[in-house]
Amino acid sequence: MARVQRDLTLRLEVEELYTEYAHALDNLELEQWPEFFTDECLYQIVSRENLERGMPLALMRCESKAMLADRVVTIRQTQMFAPRATRHLVSSMRIAPSSGADGLDVQANYAVLETLVDEETRILSAGRYIDKLVREGDVLKFKSRTCVYDSVLVPNSIIYPL
Amino acid sequence: MARVQRDLTLRLEVEELYTEYAHALDNLELEQWPEFFTDECLYQIVSRENLERGMPLALMRCESKAMLADRVVTIRQTQMFAPRATRHLVSSMRIAPSSGADGLDVQANYAVLETLVDEETRILSAGRYIDKLVREGDVLKFKSRTCVYDSVLVPNSIIYPL
Amino acid sequence: MARVQRDLTLRLEVEELYTEYAHALDNLELEQWPEFFTDECLYQIVSRENLERGMPLALMRCESKAMLADRVVTIRQTQMFAPRATRHLVSSMRIAPSSGADGLDVQANYAVLETLVDEETRILSAGRYIDKLVREGDVLKFKSRTCVYDSVLVPNSIIYPL
Repeated sequence: MARVQRDLTLRLEVEELYTEYAHALDNLELEQWPEFFTDECLYQIVSRENLERGMPLALMRCESKAMLADRVVTIRQTQMFAPRATRHLVSSMRIAPSSGADGLDVQANYAVLETLVDEETRILSAGRYIDKLVREGDVLKFKSRTCVYDSVLVPNSIIYPL
Repeated sequence: MARVQRDLTLRLEVEELYTEYAHALDNLELEQWPEFFTDECLYQIVSRENLERGMPLALMRCESKAMLADRVVTIRQTQMFAPRATRHLVSSMRIAPSSGADGLDVQANYAVLETLVDEETRILSAGRYIDKLVREGDVLKFKSRTCVYDSVLVPNSIIYPL
Repeated sequence: MARVQRDLTLRLEVEELYTEYAHALDNLELEQWPEFFTDECLYQIVSRENLERGMPLALMRCESKAMLADRVVTIRQTQMFAPRATRHLVSSMRIAPSSGADGLDVQANYAVLETLVDEETRILSAGRYIDKLVREGDVLKFKSRTCVYDSVLVPNSIIYPL
């Protein structure tokens, strides 16, 4: 019983991290985004094809919380893109049973919908999160988050993180 | 332990309300829809833009369970729209920690897909539910449900509630 | 308390089955797919319209695990379709309260997104899973899975199971 209780509590914690991450981005609270990561971290958006071929090319790649913060500044200063709303849908979350001392391995399916002014809502990106979570103090944070998108087309309109 | 248990039980209850709401609409059991609300209630569909500007314009607005029931009758009597199926996807549910005596504050992301006869499935609306839940007898009900949709375009084809 | 604990544990088990099923298909581990079913089983993809009219016509129908395995071989040997990635989103899972001795009745909404090379991600199919789950040894398996899709259009591009 105690084990089940621990599993449930952990699962809720992971879901809460994912949920808060999605809401922060969908609310355009970009300055909150780096706070979901540890100081040393990896955030990258890669295509499924490149990941499978072991190719390092990434659409976005940040290797520390400081780089994430820089990225936010860059987005805030860029005026060359049309206003848009994003909406994250996350499903099929899976915590690897081997997750242990060095962190939790978690995967989930995602779809990010995007709505531009005067346009219909469309699918910006669908794919999989491949994450490593660690505990920092009392809270879970991303040690790494890899967003593996299904399309081979480079979606050059990806402005915000996924 | 007891607190975690209470949290989990409450979370399941909220999820069940959301799930039954989605199934009732997707099954076109419209007559069930008002039953998810308290007698005095608010149901509205507003654009993100209007909500942010504090403008009261809503695509749909009902201020009591009786008005919800009226709305259902109106939909049932309207023959001027093509048959369609809807499909709700709900994700990233968040129960506010401050939720207490006057009810629960819950938010979630939603996407409603729509399929018309002889057409492909498309995204009818994506956005956020902003809800206030209260207990009526043994069951949780919506004291208010605000559907904030991301598009600025008025989707004039919204026939059914979201 | 013990009852709530049992309910939660069961719910997690069902969610895990759904999650592993989705990941196996999205990872194109097709050979794993039959393993989610009991030896005698039913897997079918039917339109909402046919289901409501009680018409037996199905887009895909397999009546045993052996038939599921045959289906996988057929897909693997078919070279006449373009490479594609699928992405399952599952939401609003509902375990029927009457579920008992003869198995669990579970329903959920699904959307399967599809991405072809050089194309944008689109909605391949949206609809409802109507499932019967039974325990085989220690694990839950599908005794039957019926995928009821919303579109009336026959999506002739459905290659993989949903």
